[in-house]
Amino acid sequence: MDPVRFPQHTIARKRDGHALSADEIKWFVRGATDGSWADYQLSAMLMAIYLKGMTPGETAVLTSAMMSSGVVADLSSVSLPKVDKHSSGGVGDKVSLHLAPMIAVCGAAVPMISGRGLGHTGGTLDKLEAIAGFRVSLTMAEYRAQVERVGVALIGQTAELAPADKKLYALRDVTGTVESIPLICASILCKKLAEGIDALVLNVTYGRGAFMTEKARARELAVAMVDIGRAMGKPIRAVLTAMDEPLGRAVGNGVEVAESIACLRGQGPADLMEVTFVLGEQMLLLGGLATDAESARDRLEAGIASGAALAKFREIVAAQGGDVRMVDEPSRLPAARLQDPLVSAAGGFVRDVDARVVARACLRLGAGRALAEDPIDPAVGVTRLVKVGERVPPGGVLALVHANDKAALAAARALLARAIVVGETPGTPFKLIEEIID
Amino acid sequence: MDPVRFPQHTIARKRDGHALSADEIKWFVRGATDGSWADYQLSAMLMAIYLKGMTPGETAVLTSAMMSSGVVADLSSVSLPKVDKHSSGGVGDKVSLHLAPMIAVCGAAVPMISGRGLGHTGGTLDKLEAIAGFRVSLTMAEYRAQVERVGVALIGQTAELAPADKKLYALRDVTGTVESIPLICASILCKKLAEGIDALVLNVTYGRGAFMTEKARARELAVAMVDIGRAMGKPIRAVLTAMDEPLGRAVGNGVEVAESIACLRGQGPADLMEVTFVLGEQMLLLGGLATDAESARDRLEAGIASGAALAKFREIVAAQGGDVRMVDEPSRLPAARLQDPLVSAAGGFVRDVDARVVARACLRLGAGRALAEDPIDPAVGVTRLVKVGERVPPGGVLALVHANDKAALAAARALLARAIVVGETPGTPFKLIEEIID
Repeated sequence: MDPVRFPQHTIARKRDGHALSADEIKWFVRGATDGSWADYQLSAMLMAIYLKGMTPGETAVLTSAMMSSGVVADLSSVSLPKVDKHSSGGVGDKVSLHLAPMIAVCGAAVPMISGRGLGHTGGTLDKLEAIAGFRVSLTMAEYRAQVERVGVALIGQTAELAPADKKLYALRDVTGTVESIPLICASILCKKLAEGIDALVLNVTYGRGAFMTEKARARELAVAMVDIGRAMGKPIRAVLTAMDEPLGRAVGNGVEVAESIACLRGQGPADLMEVTFVLGEQMLLLGGLATDAESARDRLEAGIASGAALAKFREIVAAQGGDVRMVDEPSRLPAARLQDPLVSAAGGFVRDVDARVVARACLRLGAGRALAEDPIDPAVGVTRLVKVGERVPPGGVLALVHANDKAALAAARALLARAIVVGETPGTPFKLIEEIID
Repeated sequence: MDPVRFPQHTIARKRDGHALSADEIKWFVRGATDGSWADYQLSAMLMAIYLKGMTPGETAVLTSAMMSSGVVADLSSVSLPKVDKHSSGGVGDKVSLHLAPMIAVCGAAVPMISGRGLGHTGGTLDKLEAIAGFRVSLTMAEYRAQVERVGVALIGQTAELAPADKKLYALRDVTGTVESIPLICASILCKKLAEGIDALVLNVTYGRGAFMTEKARARELAVAMVDIGRAMGKPIRAVLTAMDEPLGRAVGNGVEVAESIACLRGQGPADLMEVTFVLGEQMLLLGGLATDAESARDRLEAGIASGAALAKFREIVAAQGGDVRMVDEPSRLPAARLQDPLVSAAGGFVRDVDARVVARACLRLGAGRALAEDPIDPAVGVTRLVKVGERVPPGGVLALVHANDKAALAAARALLARAIVVGETPGTPFKLIEEIID
């Protein structure tokens, strides 16, 4: 007769540094999903995993079990290669909005389930909702139908998807167990792999404006996720990128949609386009739609030059109920009442733009959330941000602040004045793309 | 303005290996007491403490905060020195029953709050309840009045005492966080120090029949508890004793009461008396009632020889409603229907008596609990147990089994036959008293 097995016995094995068996990991995930493990047992296990780690094999089993805790989208009716991209988040990171249609016009489907913003990083869903009428809540059937018809769906997480992750993430948030590489990996990948994709490209960011500030730790996360993909038989590549100054020149929601539209019109800022192209190249390579990075970039550039990528974005907006006039005329996007330039008194060279402080300024304006239930203002934010290395004349604009409130405007201006450093000589530009890990 | 402080921030500090401030520890204990920390936060903190440890200073603050989470007995009306003893548990450990009256007749008060048995170790309260009518649940007022009048009260934990410990212990039990030295120290000492005592002697056991099997780990626990006493200004001494064979010759409940009465009549087994005297010496020394161990032992022996210690035990039993005829005539204690000797076929020398296996035999007879809610049978157990090193003639009795059920008797006999090893040459006797730590 087998002795009765209690959760504490499995918790104690992880506590003592053992690798858990697949059965134990699946039992823990089932316990989180059906409530057969108490919350206090789940959180003790999360702390033990945080402090004792997991092997790549354990993390792959955890990811797979969390993915299977809910619905896994069946996109077998979509014959195109299905490729998605995920970013670990950054200030001004609106890449998904324009990259998804750019990839679709090259012949891949992009079934993308995204999140909302919290803290200093913005969320793709919040940005899309700046477009009047845009619906991010589709049913799984609508999602599949739109991927079949349009090639892209940009939606939010549904309750059916990876419920174990919802439970565990909520506990991690209040028990000091967020920053654990195996737990982060499993949380990100279980949702992405539940989308029904064939391959995934990750933008793993590091720096002041990223979730992980240290490059070495971000690299560790990237390697761990690529390893899990290998263990699960799903090709995953990771691009390690710096997030020290904001990506592009706009930070907010409506203002970022406008910048994405500019990208699709061939008018995107250089840094933002560079990250977009590098991620897009890897997506086309993994989707089997290009044999080398150069030809992949040629195809992506051709999609912009022909107007096909912009037309695809318009088609996505229309399919999800959004007001396409806002795509055709971005000046129709929500506008703030106050638009106030921050200028450089002396002039010189931009030596630093601190992404985290810019994010705090935007949070103060109402562009982001401090708590998950906070409302956001789609109109506010910052545009015309200078980039490190640029020359600024005396009286030149450092940023244009979009605000709906005078006190918030003043506070945001003060923060931006701290974030942007102008000196007499040019600073060293940040190295944007650090490494591609596969 | 101070940033808002959430439990997860303090959990994360312990997770990262920092020593917590006194305020943080008190907040955690308050959170456990008033529910302002969620159970899942308490358990994540317990796992972080388990894995990262606590300094002696932190453990002292934790102990003090847990003690102060409820009522602390005020025995200032008792003018005698108030000394107690605690054992980390063992098989056949009935020392408290006869030691408390032995100490009282030497001039110290013994206000003793004890626990019940769980698993392989017995509980003082369960043993006392083998005496018909004995009440272990006194109010704090009755407790104080009895210590004033009789000098000894032997009671169970009340709900008012250290409620934080009850909460945390229940969580530790189901989250794999029991065997942590700072948590064990705080749990034991917070209750003992809430008794209102001046000094405490600990019997820290190690070996097969103890909670801690390794000597080094038991020593670590003993040192930690003595250190906490020092930090809290309460003299604490620890005696490190082996628990490999049962203590004495009787294991059960009623049978252990009978053996304690035999001790008070000067007829106790040598090993049991040795542990009793060593602990008693330290209690008298800490209570200022003797200046050296030899004179302390003389006083303890005189109390037995004069009959005063036995009379004090009778007085305690009477004060707590017990049937004193059972003290005068132990044959009146609950008797089992079946009394069956286990004999040695070949004869020889007793090489081993495995305390843990003897405990399992007694558990099978119904003398202990597998679960906290199990009833216990006061009549069953084992007497006349042989001791390691003794010669046994062919057909000699190894143990007398007291049972109320034939199947249980057969199972217990099989276990005892495994526990007791008889060989041709004498084994090495266990070293009973390892060290006194102060």
